[in-house]
Amino acid sequence: MTEQINVGMIGAGRIGRVHAENLAYHIPEANVVAIADIFVEVAEKCAADFGIPSVFQSHRAIMENDQIDAVVICSSTDTHAQFIEEAAAAGKHIFCEKPIDFDLKRIDQALAAVEKASVKLQIGFNRRFDPSFKRVRDMVAGGEIGTPHMVHIISRDPGPPPIDYIKVSGGIFLDMTIHDFDMARYLIGSKVEEVYAVGGVMVDPEIGEAGDIDTALVTLRYANGAIGSIDNSRQAVYGYDQRVEVFGSEGGVVVANRTPDNAIVSNADGVHAAKPLYFFIERYTDAFIAEMKEFVAAIREDKTPPVTGIDGRIPVVMGLAAWKSYRENRPVKLSEID
Amino acid sequence: MTEQINVGMIGAGRIGRVHAENLAYHIPEANVVAIADIFVEVAEKCAADFGIPSVFQSHRAIMENDQIDAVVICSSTDTHAQFIEEAAAAGKHIFCEKPIDFDLKRIDQALAAVEKASVKLQIGFNRRFDPSFKRVRDMVAGGEIGTPHMVHIISRDPGPPPIDYIKVSGGIFLDMTIHDFDMARYLIGSKVEEVYAVGGVMVDPEIGEAGDIDTALVTLRYANGAIGSIDNSRQAVYGYDQRVEVFGSEGGVVVANRTPDNAIVSNADGVHAAKPLYFFIERYTDAFIAEMKEFVAAIREDKTPPVTGIDGRIPVVMGLAAWKSYRENRPVKLSEID
Amino acid sequence: MTEQINVGMIGAGRIGRVHAENLAYHIPEANVVAIADIFVEVAEKCAADFGIPSVFQSHRAIMENDQIDAVVICSSTDTHAQFIEEAAAAGKHIFCEKPIDFDLKRIDQALAAVEKASVKLQIGFNRRFDPSFKRVRDMVAGGEIGTPHMVHIISRDPGPPPIDYIKVSGGIFLDMTIHDFDMARYLIGSKVEEVYAVGGVMVDPEIGEAGDIDTALVTLRYANGAIGSIDNSRQAVYGYDQRVEVFGSEGGVVVANRTPDNAIVSNADGVHAAKPLYFFIERYTDAFIAEMKEFVAAIREDKTPPVTGIDGRIPVVMGLAAWKSYRENRPVKLSEID
Amino acid sequence: MTEQINVGMIGAGRIGRVHAENLAYHIPEANVVAIADIFVEVAEKCAADFGIPSVFQSHRAIMENDQIDAVVICSSTDTHAQFIEEAAAAGKHIFCEKPIDFDLKRIDQALAAVEKASVKLQIGFNRRFDPSFKRVRDMVAGGEIGTPHMVHIISRDPGPPPIDYIKVSGGIFLDMTIHDFDMARYLIGSKVEEVYAVGGVMVDPEIGEAGDIDTALVTLRYANGAIGSIDNSRQAVYGYDQRVEVFGSEGGVVVANRTPDNAIVSNADGVHAAKPLYFFIERYTDAFIAEMKEFVAAIREDKTPPVTGIDGRIPVVMGLAAWKSYRENRPVKLSEID
Repeated sequence: MTEQINVGMIGAGRIGRVHAENLAYHIPEANVVAIADIFVEVAEKCAADFGIPSVFQSHRAIMENDQIDAVVICSSTDTHAQFIEEAAAAGKHIFCEKPIDFDLKRIDQALAAVEKASVKLQIGFNRRFDPSFKRVRDMVAGGEIGTPHMVHIISRDPGPPPIDYIKVSGGIFLDMTIHDFDMARYLIGSKVEEVYAVGGVMVDPEIGEAGDIDTALVTLRYANGAIGSIDNSRQAVYGYDQRVEVFGSEGGVVVANRTPDNAIVSNADGVHAAKPLYFFIERYTDAFIAEMKEFVAAIREDKTPPVTGIDGRIPVVMGLAAWKSYRENRPVKLSEID
Repeated sequence: MTEQINVGMIGAGRIGRVHAENLAYHIPEANVVAIADIFVEVAEKCAADFGIPSVFQSHRAIMENDQIDAVVICSSTDTHAQFIEEAAAAGKHIFCEKPIDFDLKRIDQALAAVEKASVKLQIGFNRRFDPSFKRVRDMVAGGEIGTPHMVHIISRDPGPPPIDYIKVSGGIFLDMTIHDFDMARYLIGSKVEEVYAVGGVMVDPEIGEAGDIDTALVTLRYANGAIGSIDNSRQAVYGYDQRVEVFGSEGGVVVANRTPDNAIVSNADGVHAAKPLYFFIERYTDAFIAEMKEFVAAIREDKTPPVTGIDGRIPVVMGLAAWKSYRENRPVKLSEID
Repeated sequence: MTEQINVGMIGAGRIGRVHAENLAYHIPEANVVAIADIFVEVAEKCAADFGIPSVFQSHRAIMENDQIDAVVICSSTDTHAQFIEEAAAAGKHIFCEKPIDFDLKRIDQALAAVEKASVKLQIGFNRRFDPSFKRVRDMVAGGEIGTPHMVHIISRDPGPPPIDYIKVSGGIFLDMTIHDFDMARYLIGSKVEEVYAVGGVMVDPEIGEAGDIDTALVTLRYANGAIGSIDNSRQAVYGYDQRVEVFGSEGGVVVANRTPDNAIVSNADGVHAAKPLYFFIERYTDAFIAEMKEFVAAIREDKTPPVTGIDGRIPVVMGLAAWKSYRENRPVKLSEID
Repeated sequence: MTEQINVGMIGAGRIGRVHAENLAYHIPEANVVAIADIFVEVAEKCAADFGIPSVFQSHRAIMENDQIDAVVICSSTDTHAQFIEEAAAAGKHIFCEKPIDFDLKRIDQALAAVEKASVKLQIGFNRRFDPSFKRVRDMVAGGEIGTPHMVHIISRDPGPPPIDYIKVSGGIFLDMTIHDFDMARYLIGSKVEEVYAVGGVMVDPEIGEAGDIDTALVTLRYANGAIGSIDNSRQAVYGYDQRVEVFGSEGGVVVANRTPDNAIVSNADGVHAAKPLYFFIERYTDAFIAEMKEFVAAIREDKTPPVTGIDGRIPVVMGLAAWKSYRENRPVKLSEID
């Protein structure tokens, strides 16, 4: 096993801060040596909060630093493919937030660069590392519910992101459903071959004016015959709703939401429990730590990362297929896209 | 308010016995005076068990009995339309099990006969009378969850019926999903305009050989913009799975399964609760009583029954659309069928 | 097996109506032929509602009716022992509501009369017939949780009875806890040897002025070494709270409350479920039917009833011991009372 | 606000490691500069794992180090009072694990030393910092359930500690129930005036041979009239069982166990959920962090710590009263002890 891994962070926004904090406090095997953000004061704040010694405005300083073994890319989506290529060229291992890009050709170039450089690439599908979802996948893989017949994923945000973000997000299927597309693959361990998407603008008309929708229901057909659905909403007033269900020949398993406390109050109005944990930061606290631990372990132990570049590419295909399906109101095979 | 209603039962099979017992023991306002079944010994057994004075092999004896105010039709589906017409011609009010028929023209003839005779007709969509589902509908109707965006219905049987039944059942969408099509309408109070059905043979190949499928997932589009899904399986090894969820702009409501007991056992293997109530007889005990009470009340108080002939017809349209969608693998508008 | 059992009802109050309705609609093996109540119009109402042919003001008419096989005693507690003796003398089987009496000598006289007459006597501890509590007892008896170490019974009413009732009720330990004393014996299947009672007036000062308390916590010591507690309150604002827990060497089992519906609502305020079923009529609907079915079966099949006279006597001893313990603030052995 | 707090750890056993890890990774405001343990290799292991620069065998090296602002005492109970006094004399703030001592005089000496030196002292009652229990306390304090009438605490370990530990533990009431005595005070915010304890040896006869019991039920009477119970077992085969319930005039609140995952499995055998989190390390992960954060904050902001020396003393009085009650089988007032 190698020494402590030196990490350079690119991007110090919300998710960048999550990873910086986890690397600083929860992963002794890694050492964050530098952080870059085009908004340099954001990087400086993050550096101060989590004890990162060097701060830069340009990501180039990270790429050119020979001490850095790995980069963690948390910048905006339009920079992902380029930064992956630069990091690969610099011989650095790469953790990159999803999605790699909205363009499959661009993704393929980036993945080719990674392959050529023989560096590790892990994509940030954090939900795979949640103990409940992992347990479902293990049960499915272990045959504990028999042959899977049906899967349902419910994934609703507590509120929509700013319209400016929506406009560059790739739309609901590439920004939000992309996590669920990955979960759909992860839970069942079979390829999705066809999708059918319906949806609409039910939360905020501005989202519609931006060319996006805010509520969607996607039907999935798997290669192994299983079928499933993904339910997305940009706004559940009760908070982040993250549930899955897999039903099979020998039984079914459902994952309920997690809550900040377990107190149940009975009074004249009814019986009351806490709302779900508010949003992804709270819900996936442990999963974010676990994914980064596994990334660091993959480097130190020279193993394949648990979420590969291909795992990052396929949900983009699914998202593009979902958009095509939504627009043409017909089931679309993934092979039509790819 | 009129006197006690005299009821004649046609059909003494499983569901016929449920209604006979409920009329005998739970609905003092009704009086079962005769029962007919082509298997006369089945009718005799039912009559003995529930104190029904007269037994016949032919339903004609019921139709011709002037003392009888109302008939309860629990015979096989292929006789429903005919018996509705005969009962209407005889001036008797009618409770008929679902479906009225698989043929829309035949249904329309029967409904025309009912209208001409000005008798009451109630169709046996018992789930509307379940307290949990009724509460969801009342919440939706009362705006308690805001504008409904999404509905999910999960409806799985503990095991498939005999193959001989499957063969004459109209197939999963007309035999099983038909209940859920009604529930989809009931819960949201808006028309479904388009369906998209996927599914397969996952439980028993014999079902496939009979030309049917045993697992299905139907996407629904409502006139009011809401979307939804129905999940059906002919076999959940843990018993009858009957859940619904409605999600809206101000919140969501889910209905969990009911269980025979509320004991929760913790031991070295985990924490264990009872399986759901076994099948529809156990799950909808109270709903079967309530629907019959309301039928009797509709006659005595001269009100429109809570589930009309049109309510019986529309789910057949949805079932036919679902079959067309499944076969052509495309969304099908109800207007294509009707 | 004998013919249908002819039953005479004594007392047409709340619990009398429950038994009359159950005998009329749910127990075909029994036939209620007469009802008596000193408030004869109450008896007349009950007779009209449930089709009872004869109505009397005096219970004597029931005792003297040779057609009557069994009496169901639902009159006030001060008449129980006398009516048991009269019924025994008349050779009639007896179902009697709890408690038999507050005086052990009076109970012993009544039980001696029953023994001498060789009639069946069943005491109305309805909770034993609840499916959840029965399942706990069966688990304990079957060793599924190993050796029982600890039992907890929580039993809280939705609101106190009228003060006039409180005054003649024998006080909380003989009126309310008596059910839980029976449950404590039933669940564990071992004798309670010592009790320690604390409590106070927390709900309504008028209850204190009447010489009673409204909140109590009783510690139990069993002959087999197990220990336990009973928690009583005359008022839970959220309704009838009926839970038990048994903990043993191999695991534990808890019984949760039952609810009128299974709808769970999530909104901006939290996650909300229904309150428990309102009171004993709603909570123990099926248990009341089951206890009466078993009483009728015990007569028809000449079996020992499931709740005997001794089962009716012991909780009175426990109640008297609890009062002594409460007044002297010390643990009291049942042998001090009996 | 002062600078980062320099902490010296005394004791590197199980709980010492928890605090060392939390101080190292979760509390940037503190800096662990040294650790001492009479088993020096245990201290060395802990130092290596959590980056502590100095290791000693004797606690004196900690006391004499002028750089150290605060000590965290995790050594065996018999050293607590002495180390508190030494730390106070050295002008260091003190976090000390429970109990301070089994002897009230010895506790009073230690608390006097703390008072004289005007240093902060916080006792390690970690459960107060659990979000669920904290929420219950806040609800009670805020009047959300009205006047509290009844409290129940269930606290069962997954398995007994080694017999050698039992022998020096002070027995169940001073070792295990002591946490629940603190919880009883914390939740209700009123003094407990009298206790009555029953119990026995049900888990392991060796515990009895060591003069201790392994199962106990303690009745509590509060100064404000509320009553309550504490249920303890040294072994719940399903894991660490940590529940509380408070019932009051306006409602009740219960805290359910927390689980490692939220997956619920339905199969032919029933419906199954995960066992509770295994033991205190897992169950109170966040609470251990929170208590240490608050200790550090109390020093930096010169505030009274959230669990004072008196809060550490009273549960010892309660434990001694419980032992006296158990031995004499009678309720014992705390004033008899103190």
